[in-house]
Amino acid sequence: MASSSKAGVPAFDAPELEELKRTLVTACHILDREGITDGYGHVSARVPGTAAFFTIANVSPGLASLERLIMLDCDGAYLGGAETPPNEWPIHGRVLRARPDAMSVCHTHSVWSSLFSVLPIKLRPLHHYGKFLPADGPPVYEAAGLVRTVERGDALAAALGSGPVVLMRAHGDTVVGDSIQQAIQRTVRLARLGELLHLALLHGEPRYLTPKELETFNADEQFPARGWEYFVSRLGKQG
Amino acid sequence: MASSSKAGVPAFDAPELEELKRTLVTACHILDREGITDGYGHVSARVPGTAAFFTIANVSPGLASLERLIMLDCDGAYLGGAETPPNEWPIHGRVLRARPDAMSVCHTHSVWSSLFSVLPIKLRPLHHYGKFLPADGPPVYEAAGLVRTVERGDALAAALGSGPVVLMRAHGDTVVGDSIQQAIQRTVRLARLGELLHLALLHGEPRYLTPKELETFNADEQFPARGWEYFVSRLGKQG
Amino acid sequence: MASSSKAGVPAFDAPELEELKRTLVTACHILDREGITDGYGHVSARVPGTAAFFTIANVSPGLASLERLIMLDCDGAYLGGAETPPNEWPIHGRVLRARPDAMSVCHTHSVWSSLFSVLPIKLRPLHHYGKFLPADGPPVYEAAGLVRTVERGDALAAALGSGPVVLMRAHGDTVVGDSIQQAIQRTVRLARLGELLHLALLHGEPRYLTPKELETFNADEQFPARGWEYFVSRLGKQG
Amino acid sequence: MASSSKAGVPAFDAPELEELKRTLVTACHILDREGITDGYGHVSARVPGTAAFFTIANVSPGLASLERLIMLDCDGAYLGGAETPPNEWPIHGRVLRARPDAMSVCHTHSVWSSLFSVLPIKLRPLHHYGKFLPADGPPVYEAAGLVRTVERGDALAAALGSGPVVLMRAHGDTVVGDSIQQAIQRTVRLARLGELLHLALLHGEPRYLTPKELETFNADEQFPARGWEYFVSRLGKQG
Repeated sequence: MASSSKAGVPAFDAPELEELKRTLVTACHILDREGITDGYGHVSARVPGTAAFFTIANVSPGLASLERLIMLDCDGAYLGGAETPPNEWPIHGRVLRARPDAMSVCHTHSVWSSLFSVLPIKLRPLHHYGKFLPADGPPVYEAAGLVRTVERGDALAAALGSGPVVLMRAHGDTVVGDSIQQAIQRTVRLARLGELLHLALLHGEPRYLTPKELETFNADEQFPARGWEYFVSRLGKQG
Repeated sequence: MASSSKAGVPAFDAPELEELKRTLVTACHILDREGITDGYGHVSARVPGTAAFFTIANVSPGLASLERLIMLDCDGAYLGGAETPPNEWPIHGRVLRARPDAMSVCHTHSVWSSLFSVLPIKLRPLHHYGKFLPADGPPVYEAAGLVRTVERGDALAAALGSGPVVLMRAHGDTVVGDSIQQAIQRTVRLARLGELLHLALLHGEPRYLTPKELETFNADEQFPARGWEYFVSRLGKQG
Repeated sequence: MASSSKAGVPAFDAPELEELKRTLVTACHILDREGITDGYGHVSARVPGTAAFFTIANVSPGLASLERLIMLDCDGAYLGGAETPPNEWPIHGRVLRARPDAMSVCHTHSVWSSLFSVLPIKLRPLHHYGKFLPADGPPVYEAAGLVRTVERGDALAAALGSGPVVLMRAHGDTVVGDSIQQAIQRTVRLARLGELLHLALLHGEPRYLTPKELETFNADEQFPARGWEYFVSRLGKQG
Repeated sequence: MASSSKAGVPAFDAPELEELKRTLVTACHILDREGITDGYGHVSARVPGTAAFFTIANVSPGLASLERLIMLDCDGAYLGGAETPPNEWPIHGRVLRARPDAMSVCHTHSVWSSLFSVLPIKLRPLHHYGKFLPADGPPVYEAAGLVRTVERGDALAAALGSGPVVLMRAHGDTVVGDSIQQAIQRTVRLARLGELLHLALLHGEPRYLTPKELETFNADEQFPARGWEYFVSRLGKQG
């Protein structure tokens, strides 16, 4: 299949996109290494200034490579790279369309997001790792079925609203960030927070962070770069 | 011991069975790698179009190899390969006899199947990973004792009925598939589902998937091939 | 320090004891690899037909080696090998003295034994992995303090009685076997059983195995050799 | 940046401090390997006889190296080494100032410390691994916000008082020791104890160790050297 070209979108192989693609591959490997994804999640990255994005073709994140990236636009039109889009491309396309501030979207089946997606309890922050969340926790997209249509993608984006995270009932989560690094860091911290809240709830009502306390934590620097460096360093080691 | 021959069954070493045997070995390694089996499970694969099957001889799945496969018929008659059948060969022989649609059988002692086998709570699907299960969960084979006789194997097959899974009280589970890949994928997903349901039940009544919601999920493609590719890729890495 | 000799006890370096010593080192490594010990457990093996035994000197099981074995008698007299006995040598000496049927003793701080040691709930078998236990579970040695004296060792042996296992409050467990292999297998299965019972108890009263059901399981072959082969195969791989 | 010199404090590169620095790097790697830190903890070591200390610059403990150590005084003045102090240097500076007996401070976000930091339940010792703790458990520093100011560091030190540990609400813990080895061993054992107490509390009121029983355990030798040897041996192996 030849790459379609689209007005204003650089070609799949444009040299200025090389670093973005490499970071996206690394991001997929990190989610795999950190035990957040199993074989079925995906990450996307917006081509800056456009409605096009890169994601992995029909392959597990742990096996992502430059050769297995695909470029699509927000309506699912093929723009280059590997030829088989992931089944759930509308998660990425429709969220990126609805959220011009988002530069990256992660979708995983994290056990902790899956857990809170089926409970009548909100995933509210009780550790500063959750300071990027609203004090009353992220919303839940309730509909059954994989997000394989534009309609379902738009409904997911509506459930996400202007927030950082939407849980997906019986399924997992979708997380956005202003960079690939932020989307990955949020995805990992959401899982860590979900585990901690699960543990705490077993012992009664825990002390959640108040909106004012979240503000205090948010006044500090966000997600220092040593987190990404650490994740990258772990890719060569199994665990 | 010389291989017996049986009318209509190819020889143990027939070249057309080589790929099936290699896939069976890989399947055993996957269950070991994914932490589903300890040293004691086994997987079988039907010789297509016959009542004969391959399984591992008296060896742990993680140590399966072509040299340690055995061919048996559904009554336990030796048809070739390694000479010591697994103690519980009737799990495979009698289920494959009772279920002509099944091409592969997995038996493991998964902690999650073991758990639900001793609880008064059914392992009902609350994540789409469980969409291959009935909405009210799999049955439980209640009898004590290892399945080392034809009688017990027949009783297990009766408990399984026409479904994909039977839990085995104080023991583990038996799972069937229309291919080795499907049996393995179901076994892994059953364990993931069991863990998730366990976690969810600690917080009250979770939202299960309704029969209609299961239908919605089942309308999507089943078990895409990237899962198997991913499992295979992990065999070279320890974790 | 020169090896003392003792009537009827072969020398530390006697060739006929070489295999026993190698198996003991392997056993220590297995407990480490399987996540049962942290840095502080130990395993011993009786010199056949005597009241002497080998154990590891003051070293973690994961670092056991032929050079770091020590030979002691049941009163703690030094008979050869590395010179620093483990702090808690009386666990081994006094249990082996009290239990002529025991050929090996394992002491670990397994999280699951530690857990049931401080609960008012007995670790009763609800999976066939616990078929070596009494139906009402093992006793608990209640006294505080490490077992560093003959008196405490004798009290521990009294609490063990004629059974396979004694839990040690706020500490861990001591397990005996008629071979090193059996003691290791029992130690691993005790931990697996403890985890399973812990999980099951969170959901109400589980179905325990009755004495009659335990008999049915015990009529089957005990601990087939493929378990030991599997444990050994895992020593070269980290996880 | 040139190293400042300070009366009575050896230079960053003084040969007599080489071993201390190497031990500090090893300590950071141990916390990473044992799964206690994620990318964000830090360890410090006092320059003996002074109010100066070494810690890691703005880097994850798993990536600590001699080149990424920094020397600071208790007020945060730069004394040598890598140039970017960790955001939360006041944890180390102000605790070392307030506690002349402390030679090392560890700060981690251990899931178990984080858990008990948000519960209305004290982390009381119920296993001898917690014998270094008071019988009624460590205090909790309640304030929100990272410890990035001298004022917050002083408040943390006040909450710690003369004890070995202070939990930090929605954050983690700070642990002191009379050596790097003791601080690390305490940090690891605090996490193991927290996990065990969490498990035990799920089954009702566990049997805690009484002050008298803690005395009995404390009469035994503390933290034998084989623990540190074991931790070091694991650094070369992933798990």
